Amino acid sequence: MIEPDFRGGLLPVIVQDAKTREVLMFAYMNEEAFRLTRETGLAHYYSRSRQKLWKKGEESGHVQRVKEMRIDCDADCLLLLVEQETAACHTGYVSCFYRDIDGHVVGSKAFDPDDVYGEAVHGRHAQKTQQ
Amino acid sequence: MIEPDFRGGLLPVIVQDAKTREVLMFAYMNEEAFRLTRETGLAHYYSRSRQKLWKKGEESGHVQRVKEMRIDCDADCLLLLVEQETAACHTGYVSCFYRDIDGHVVGSKAFDPDDVYGEAVHGRHAQKTQQ
Repeated sequence: MIEPDFRGGLLPVIVQDAKTREVLMFAYMNEEAFRLTRETGLAHYYSRSRQKLWKKGEESGHVQRVKEMRIDCDADCLLLLVEQETAACHTGYVSCFYRDIDGHVVGSKAFDPDDVYGEAVHGRHAQKTQQ
Repeated sequence: MIEPDFRGGLLPVIVQDAKTREVLMFAYMNEEAFRLTRETGLAHYYSRSRQKLWKKGEESGHVQRVKEMRIDCDADCLLLLVEQETAACHTGYVSCFYRDIDGHVVGSKAFDPDDVYGEAVHGRHAQKTQQ
């Protein structure tokens, strides 16, 4: 195994849909999140705002099954190719990158966040996921 | 335009090939790099190790023409869809993510770095590009 370089603290992680090749989200891993992802095959990250480990989909059920893990030339960034349950973004869009810089919506919506998280929970969740 | 959130300092940037959808590299932008990328249509980044702005391809000629710029739900990460000249990685591979975590080479090579940077320059360049 190529040892990821955690000297910079957290490791940036790019998440891409294994089939469509759409970039779904961006997150960070600490060493425990990396280990759990390897052991379980389900993506785990470290939330900088909540300062805790989280399993993707623990609340929504929208887990990510890791099909392949790649590492970059400097071994300080990971690329996960995943099978995404329903959608990656808490807004209901398949990808967090659902808008271009001019504000045009370019992504597709998969669910209504109020149905998944509930009105109150959704507000909380939206804050929590700020990195 | 959606204003990127630079409060965290540098903005993480994911770079994807606009045609093949291969994830090519990961880098950072400061506000000046963002502005120059918008103005010129060529990707500019901020090197954390060199603590300076750099235009991708300034040494190698392997520039990135930005076809589309997307921003994530929190407006604190960018996704560039680019037309990549030759290859993105200084190792000669098309993508910096040319290995899986077990060390198997999964990417394709486009050039010999010694031909592009020269032996001495390549050593220097490899160090410089450590983020």
